[in-house]
Amino acid sequence: MKLSSRQKKIINLVKENPPVTSEALASMLGVTRAALRPDLAVLTMTGILEAKPKVGYVYADKPFRGLVYDYIINTKVKDIMSKPVSVTEETMVYDAIVYLFLNDVGSLTVESQGFLIGTVSRKDFLKIAMGGTDIHKVPIGVIMTRMPNIITVSPEENAYDVAKKIIEHEIDSIPVVEKEIIQGKEQLKIVGKVSKTNITRLFLRLSDLK
Amino acid sequence: MKLSSRQKKIINLVKENPPVTSEALASMLGVTRAALRPDLAVLTMTGILEAKPKVGYVYADKPFRGLVYDYIINTKVKDIMSKPVSVTEETMVYDAIVYLFLNDVGSLTVESQGFLIGTVSRKDFLKIAMGGTDIHKVPIGVIMTRMPNIITVSPEENAYDVAKKIIEHEIDSIPVVEKEIIQGKEQLKIVGKVSKTNITRLFLRLSDLK
Repeated sequence: MKLSSRQKKIINLVKENPPVTSEALASMLGVTRAALRPDLAVLTMTGILEAKPKVGYVYADKPFRGLVYDYIINTKVKDIMSKPVSVTEETMVYDAIVYLFLNDVGSLTVESQGFLIGTVSRKDFLKIAMGGTDIHKVPIGVIMTRMPNIITVSPEENAYDVAKKIIEHEIDSIPVVEKEIIQGKEQLKIVGKVSKTNITRLFLRLSDLK
Repeated sequence: MKLSSRQKKIINLVKENPPVTSEALASMLGVTRAALRPDLAVLTMTGILEAKPKVGYVYADKPFRGLVYDYIINTKVKDIMSKPVSVTEETMVYDAIVYLFLNDVGSLTVESQGFLIGTVSRKDFLKIAMGGTDIHKVPIGVIMTRMPNIITVSPEENAYDVAKKIIEHEIDSIPVVEKEIIQGKEQLKIVGKVSKTNITRLFLRLSDLK
């Protein structure tokens, strides 16, 4: 959105003299009230200014909020997720760490026939690796976080939902899963993952001028 | 910004039939062109629609971009940074990892008299811990990333700058530093750090309705 220089002047005058009437604004700018009407209409409709009846105009704190919120809830997990990187629970911790480095990721999902059974993070690996255990002989199944203790997200949830889960549960990465009923039992098919990196990229996209 | 239901209808019609003239829109909505004029004025001024001369209206991809950009470049590193967590280069790797866990962070800065001399991340720790070295006997100085190979940011840089550095250099956390001249030499005083967690929190704040 590009504001005209007069609209910017109006915003500054309102910020400096709240609340201010349209008569007062017109006189400060040396124009008629009628000439100001279209500008004031745009500035109030966009939420940059708020018109308080019988009081005047004040500056509203979060002009773009509604639009940003719309954009973010219309951005789905499937639009921002990365490919999952998975191992099986029989994989030895050492091999899983090598796989983690090879794929340059911070966490792995643990799968059985494509379905989620666990997750393991750099933090979990570091804990076991510093413990003096022989990590060539310990399988991932021993150290992973297991269902149902795993926070997941669906591809249809939005960017706000997933960022909120990441912050609230203090996790770096969330598996993206689709529910499937297999022999009467609900299973979670792993289809992706969303990390703080994906959110940071979306943040840049939001603010990018280009 | 709150759009009226007619404005939302117009946006959808434009999305479905680009480019579309105001005559066509008026006829689809069963109103006169004159009645549409204020809505189209607001939608083009906000950048939600773009009016292409002699062609018609098209949907513009990033309606609120200018305003969000303003907000983000006005959000400074000092507004979003966390406290730094530092060790000295003589600290043994094992003790540093314990300190990392105690502080529940993903990386440490390495300091000498408050000035930045290195950084070490969970990834660096994992690499050394899986290598079979006795991490009780290796000091941080041996494994840390040293100046001048450290990406830093100043408290006065903005949220966009720091998110960009994080993505471009593929790092989880950036030390926030202030330059000081000590005995004719430039030194970097550690004043904070910004991680993807801080950016994810800012993303939530941006999109929060409350």
